[in-house]
Parts: sequence; C-alpha cells; structure tokens
Amino acid sequence: MACTLQEIAAALGGDLLAEGPVRIEKLASLGAAGPHDLSFVAQARAVPQIATTQAAALIVAPAWAEAAGARGPCIVTPDPYLYFARLTQWWRARRDVLEQGKANAEPTGAPPSIHPLASVDPGAHLAPGVRIAAFAVVEAGAQVGAGTQVGAHAVIERHAIVGEDCRIAPRVVVGRDCQLGDRCILHAGVVIGADGFGFAPHEGAWVKIEQLGAVRIGHDVEIGANTCIDRGALEDTVLEDGVKLDNLIQIGHNVHIGRHTAMAGCVGVAGSARIGAHCTVGGGAVVLGHLTLADGVHISAASVVMRSILQPGQYSGVFPIDDNKNWEKNAATLRQLYRLRERIKTLENKTP
Amino acid sequence: MACTLQEIAAALGGDLLAEGPVRIEKLASLGAAGPHDLSFVAQARAVPQIATTQAAALIVAPAWAEAAGARGPCIVTPDPYLYFARLTQWWRARRDVLEQGKANAEPTGAPPSIHPLASVDPGAHLAPGVRIAAFAVVEAGAQVGAGTQVGAHAVIERHAIVGEDCRIAPRVVVGRDCQLGDRCILHAGVVIGADGFGFAPHEGAWVKIEQLGAVRIGHDVEIGANTCIDRGALEDTVLEDGVKLDNLIQIGHNVHIGRHTAMAGCVGVAGSARIGAHCTVGGGAVVLGHLTLADGVHISAASVVMRSILQPGQYSGVFPIDDNKNWEKNAATLRQLYRLRERIKTLENKTP
Amino acid sequence: MACTLQEIAAALGGDLLAEGPVRIEKLASLGAAGPHDLSFVAQARAVPQIATTQAAALIVAPAWAEAAGARGPCIVTPDPYLYFARLTQWWRARRDVLEQGKANAEPTGAPPSIHPLASVDPGAHLAPGVRIAAFAVVEAGAQVGAGTQVGAHAVIERHAIVGEDCRIAPRVVVGRDCQLGDRCILHAGVVIGADGFGFAPHEGAWVKIEQLGAVRIGHDVEIGANTCIDRGALEDTVLEDGVKLDNLIQIGHNVHIGRHTAMAGCVGVAGSARIGAHCTVGGGAVVLGHLTLADGVHISAASVVMRSILQPGQYSGVFPIDDNKNWEKNAATLRQLYRLRERIKTLENKTP
Repeated sequence: MACTLQEIAAALGGDLLAEGPVRIEKLASLGAAGPHDLSFVAQARAVPQIATTQAAALIVAPAWAEAAGARGPCIVTPDPYLYFARLTQWWRARRDVLEQGKANAEPTGAPPSIHPLASVDPGAHLAPGVRIAAFAVVEAGAQVGAGTQVGAHAVIERHAIVGEDCRIAPRVVVGRDCQLGDRCILHAGVVIGADGFGFAPHEGAWVKIEQLGAVRIGHDVEIGANTCIDRGALEDTVLEDGVKLDNLIQIGHNVHIGRHTAMAGCVGVAGSARIGAHCTVGGGAVVLGHLTLADGVHISAASVVMRSILQPGQYSGVFPIDDNKNWEKNAATLRQLYRLRERIKTLENKTP
Repeated sequence: MACTLQEIAAALGGDLLAEGPVRIEKLASLGAAGPHDLSFVAQARAVPQIATTQAAALIVAPAWAEAAGARGPCIVTPDPYLYFARLTQWWRARRDVLEQGKANAEPTGAPPSIHPLASVDPGAHLAPGVRIAAFAVVEAGAQVGAGTQVGAHAVIERHAIVGEDCRIAPRVVVGRDCQLGDRCILHAGVVIGADGFGFAPHEGAWVKIEQLGAVRIGHDVEIGANTCIDRGALEDTVLEDGVKLDNLIQIGHNVHIGRHTAMAGCVGVAGSARIGAHCTVGGGAVVLGHLTLADGVHISAASVVMRSILQPGQYSGVFPIDDNKNWEKNAATLRQLYRLRERIKTLENKTP
Repeated sequence: MACTLQEIAAALGGDLLAEGPVRIEKLASLGAAGPHDLSFVAQARAVPQIATTQAAALIVAPAWAEAAGARGPCIVTPDPYLYFARLTQWWRARRDVLEQGKANAEPTGAPPSIHPLASVDPGAHLAPGVRIAAFAVVEAGAQVGAGTQVGAHAVIERHAIVGEDCRIAPRVVVGRDCQLGDRCILHAGVVIGADGFGFAPHEGAWVKIEQLGAVRIGHDVEIGANTCIDRGALEDTVLEDGVKLDNLIQIGHNVHIGRHTAMAGCVGVAGSARIGAHCTVGGGAVVLGHLTLADGVHISAASVVMRSILQPGQYSGVFPIDDNKNWEKNAATLRQLYRLRERIKTLENKTP
C-alpha cells in the first residue's frame, strides 16, 4: 500500500513542500503517526503537535505552512480536513484495486457478477457491473443500478429500486417498493421498509394498520449499521439527498428528512416528524412525532424535542450529570420546584 | 389494484353514501389524496379538511356525515380510524392475492413450501401451508404452525415453536426453546432469545451466568425491526397476547409484559421488570430492572422509570429542551438547586 | 438433564449437607422452584424465602447454612452467586453434550466441520475443531481459531481474525481486518467494524472520510444482540479483555474500553471516548465523544456524560419521573430556574 507524497499531491492537489520523494506507508493521527506515516492538522488546538509528531509528512492550512515546513515535508491546502477526507477515499480505492486486481479494472459495461450461492429472481433487473455476494436475495421486479455491490445475506425485495454505485453491506434489507438513489452506502443490518408502528385501538386491543407506503431515499445517503427506516402508512417516508445517519437510529413512518441533515447514533425520530435540511441531531436524541424542525436546527446529544422548532440554532435539554449524592438531592428538590417558585413569590410579596 | 367504494363497503360494512360506482385507486391521507383516492377523517382537528381535500371519497363518523356527504361520496361508520385499519388489511390481502396468484389460493392443507436453498432439518416439524424462504434455517425439533411464512435468512433454532399464520420477516432469529403464539409478526432483524445479561463479579472480572430460560410470546404480538427480547436466566421472559413493540427495543431477561401493552421505538426495559397490561411506553423511555408497573400506566417518551408505579396514569420525566444558552444557565443552576432551597428556607425564617 | 446434588458438588465443590442422593431436575429461582429444583440464596433480602421455597436443595453462604440445613439439603459455599454462575455453565455444557453427543466428544484435533451450504473461501484459515454453520461466509485471508463456532449467516470478512473457543451467533458480522481474542461470545446481529461516522463538511454537504482502522477485541469479551462496534478512522477501536456489552449498544470509532468494563443495553458511546477499566455504564446512558472516564467510574442508567470524569465513583443525571401534571409544572419552572436564582439573590440583598 505504500506510495509517495508526490503521488498523493499529483492525485489530490495542494502545494507540495518536499525535497525529493517521501515514502508514505499509511495515514495516521498526529499522536499515533510514525516516521513513515502521513498526518494532518485540521484544528488550531492541534498546532502544538506539529513540533512533536513523528509523522513523515503533514497536511496543513497555509497559516501553519511555515511551522510545518520547518520540520519536514508537507502539503498545504486551504481545508486540511476536507483534503484528508478525500485522501482517505483515494487510499481506500487504491487498496481495493490492489486487492481485487482485475475485478475493479473490468470495463464499465461488464455483465453483472452473481455469486453462485445467491438467489436472484429471473424477474429482477441487474444493470452492468452489479456484484451480488453469496446468499444475497434479489426478488422479482427489483432493480439494481450499474456498479452497485450487494453484500452477503442482503435482501432486495420485490419492486425495490437501488441506484448506481451503491454499497449494500452484508444483511441489509431493502423492503418491497422502497427506493435508493445513487452512491448510497448502507451498513450491515440496516432495515429499510419495515412496517411503521400503526394501530387503531379497539376494545382494549390494537388493530394493525397495514403500512402501504414505502421509503424513498435520495442520492449520496449513508445509513449506519442496524439503523431502521420504516415504510410510510400511506405516503412514503423520505430521506433527501446527502442525508447521513449513524448506527442504531430509528426513523418512524412518514418522517421527512431534508438534504444533508446528519444524525449521530441511537437517535429516535417518531412518525411524521418533518426535519429540515442541514440539521444535525446529536447521539441519543429523541424527536417526537408530527413535529417540524426548520432548516439549520442543531439538537444536542440526548436532548428530547417535544415541540416544533422553527428557528435555526442550537437546542439542548439534558439533566447535568453529577456525583450521585448531589444528583439525588437536586433531583428530589426538582420535584418540588414549582412549590419553591411559589415560596419565592410569597417572600417577594412580603419583602418591601 | 383499483376497486370501487361499493366493493369496500360490501367487504367492511358502514353506511355507503354514493350515487353510482366510485373508482378507488389507492388509500391516501386527506392532504395528499388525489381525485381517485379514498381518505378518512379520524380526528376533530381534521374536519376542516373535509371541505378542501381532493379525495374521491371519505370515511367519516356520523357527526361529520352531512359535511362529507355534501362534497361527495362517503362511508359513514362509528369509528373511522378502526375502519381505516381494517381497510388497510383488506387492501394488503387483496394486493397479495393479485401478486401471488395461485400461491394464496392453495387449499389450506397444502404441504409446506420450502425454497430449495433453505436448510430445514429433517427433525423439524412444518405444518401445512408453511412457506420457508431462501437461506432460512429451521433446526431439529423446531415446530412451525400452519400458514406461517418464514423469511429469507430467518433462523428457527432447535426446539423453538412458532404458531400459526405468523409472518417472520427476513433474518429474524427465534432462539432455541423459545415460543411464539399465533398471528405474530416479527420484522427484519428481530432477535428472540439472545442471552440475558447476567454475570457474577469475581476478583474484578465477570463470570458468565448461562441463561437457561427461554422466551414465551403470546398470540397477536408484533415486534419491530432489530428489536431484541432476551431469554430468561432460569425462568422465561414473557410477552402476553397482543403486545406491540416498535423497532430497536431492548427487553431484558425475565421481563414480563402484560396483554396489549405497546412500546414505541428505542425503549429499554431492564431485567425482571414487570409491566402490566394495557400500558404504553413512549419512544426512548427506559424502565429499570426489578420494577413493577401497574396495568394502565402510560410512560411519556424518553422518561426514565426509576421506581415502581402502582397507580394507572400518565407519567413523565424529561428535561425541557431550550435554546442552548438558556439551557446552559438553567442546567448550571440545577446543580445548585438543593442549596437554593436552603437559601429560600433561610429567607423564610428571617421574614416575618 | 436430571442429575444429583452429589454430582454437582463433586464437579463444583462446596460443602454438601445432604442425607442420601438428591435428584435435581432443573435450576430455578427461590420463588419459582419446585420440589425437584435447585435454587440459591445470594442476597440477605432473600433469606426469609429459605423457609418458604419449595426447592429440593439450596446453595447458601455459611451464615445461612443452619437455616438452610434445617429445611433440607444444601451446598454451602462462600459466594453462592458465583457458585450459581459456575453451575449454569456446568449445566449448559452438560446439556450440549447430551444433545450433540459425539460432536462434542471429538478429539481436539478434529478437522474443521463446514456445513455444505456455507461459503468458506479457500484462502481462509480454519483451525481444528472449528464449526461453520449453514450459510455462513468466511472470506479470503480470514482466520478462525480452534474450537470456535460460527453461526448461520455469520460473515467473517477478509483478513479478520477470530480467536479460539469463541461462540459467534447467527448473523454476526466481523468486518475486514477486525480481531477477536479467545473465548469471546457475540450474539445475533452484532456488527463489528462497520464504518465510523466521519465526514468533512464542504459547501453544505458531507464528504465521507473512509474509515481505514479496524476493531481490536480482547479475550473473554461478550457482546449482546444487534450491538455495533465501529471501526476506527485511522487507528483501531479497542475493547480490552473481559469487557461485557449488552444488546443494542453503539460504540463509535476509536473508542477505547478498559478491562472488565460492563455496559447495559442501549448505551451509546461517541467517537474517541476513552473509558477506563472496571467501569459500569447503566442502560440507555450516553457518553459523548473525546471524553475520558477514569477506572472505576459507574454511570447510572440513562445518564448523559458530557464532561470527562477523572475520579472513581457513582455518577447520575436523570430527570425524576413524576405524574404528568407535576412534571409539567416543574419542567415549566425549570426553564426559568436561572431567573429564580436571581430573584433569590435579590431577596437576600433586601433581607437583613
């Protein structure tokens, strides 16, 4: 996997400050980098590490080019974190080519490659370059776009549509009638299109509302391991382009998530919530059903959204952690808070 | 899939107010319905939409029959939401028959249908009408009841018992010795009967307590995608008839959940909790171990139950969300709340 | 499965107080035990049940030996809960031998047993005694240690290393390059090595940071159903020896968890958090990213760790649950708490 700093700069740009070829064996963080590793400086607080890191070379912003250049080779670029992101993509693509050899070098129009132990219905449509792994299932009427990889034990149910160049990890389910755009990444265990949670109460029991909608997912969406996106009751659940969801997230039926919104792990979004574009939701947060979040709303981790939020901004609601004894005393007092306010009022009325 | 309003009323009842046949192409919500769609009015707040919806026909309660009848065809029924639930079931069953043709029309006593790529142990017992999908596994001693569908990659482990007319979605695991009643629906990724979390501490490490109980699930239980129900340590974990669990829920070992209790997504119930019948637990709520909840207890979303609740009612405990600056100030003050109370006491003692 | 109390004491030790052989049909809790069951007394609060339990025999500490002996047979041991844990292991091993007969009696050096419907790459290395179930996938370059069982639909990706005597349940994914030590137990649906959640923001969208690290897991680690451990961005995510994780837990990229730390269900740990040894994290708790928890820190269920905790101890932060009306009043007041403090200050200044 080793390469030179020169090859990287040739592929990804940036100003290269180096005398002679610099061998790079891997990418590493500043603290962990060894003498053959390439690292990057993305935040001001990391600047002191420029002097101490063992890295062979650094990716830095212009402001830190002098300091970085003084210690050794570097690539100067306006946004080192973005450069690093693209570098990881370049690195991975290169690794895949090295590993898979001809497989990736096949002409784009190659016929689909289906593992002999996969189960692909003759009524499914696979575009050129599709690869179907062992024990995957593609049902009748399903469509898989060019260049998409379908992992082991994945299930693409009837009439589902998967776009081009998607990575479907092992044991993902894409439910019947659901749609994915191009370049989506679904990690292991993702369930797209399980039934939304809908019941009519009747004589003390629950009568199932069959969920007749589907899930529509745009381009460039990434969905983390074991995350679930329920199908809509009548209309569809929708994730717009560029949405990024981490692991173990629950998206209820008929939720709508706007473009480029990102959510960290363990978030729960209840049915029919409408979340704007360019929002972020911190890990473990909960958004109740039928609420609206405007574009650009940022919810802190573990906060619970109980009302619509129509102005962009950062919102929080978490009980501060404390040592257990203090918490117990404060929590007990909190249960009388309303009465404390009354007592303050009384005092105010008595005090001239 | 199109049908007429007349066919629906013939199948499901209700008072039909319509002159001549009304073609229905799909079911839709009031706001989304087009001129060939059937919609319903289940809540008073939706009544103003009766005048504006484009729907071909409406399902309404008697109180709104006049308004609905004035604009066009309708079905009048005492509980429109219940009617709608049954309509979705009728619609889905009709769709399945249309799609699968003869498969559903087979006589009830048809032999089990096993996909050639499934793995069914000769020592498993499959009742008539069972369908086993590709790559499913049914182990020795397992029993699957008449009419039950076992999805792709599902695993029915040894000595597990699955009742009649169940829908087991792709990659569900029903662990050894576990039991499901009739008409249960298990969505993709459900794990029934993983080990409960039990260890004895010993010299700073944890010694595993093998979990020797199982899981017993009643009739008409529905369990959402990637939800986990752990097996009991010695006795069984129990879900009674009609329990409905949403996605990504964790039910610890030896929990007992009473009839017709429903839980929304991401709930966690710790070991040996005993939850009554007809309870509801909102999304993301947590119930600690060894607690008792009476029948008819309703826990709000994201609330944490830290003590037994023996009276029916609605219970809540969530830090209210606020803009981040306000939250920070209030949260910081909260850490001194006990001392604030002391200060109020002091003031009260000083004030005549 | 029946045995005698004498056989148990012979295998596991303890002082046996019994006249003649005592037949034991199963293990049971004190309250549920019938006249052929063995139970145990691990806590002082259970002592009154010694007089009332129907159990055939009891495992007790020396302090309760007299009371237990007065009612019937017992085994006396310093730590009955630990004894019980070992007894469950003995019981399970015995059950497996009875069920599987010769399979478990094979010599240690037996060749790997591969189900004919599994997919094992010729470039994978399986040690003696490995068992691979139906529809499992082991990719090129993967290694599986002696005596390890790989369940149905499990996927061991390329270059992954699984130690000896592990139990890999159905549909576990061990991602490429990830490592497991010996005697690990992974329950159904576990995902080891999905991508960490990393993106660089760029012009309102997110640019993926390919995750080039892996996951390294020590010996004797147990991981619950549907739990996810993400691979590191550059360096590895690490779980040290003896870590125990319950179901539906999310461990972000580059997290480090110290020896013998245990976490209950539904916990979320964000990226790069560093959690010490011998910690416990209660169910549903959230640990934010880049924090440090010292050894011996105990986080109560559903608490949110928003800052590093450098002293051992118990920490909590949960809004106390209350009936909904009280909660509403107190929560509304909480949003003005800072101003209440100001009002108290004002009163204090006015009061002599």
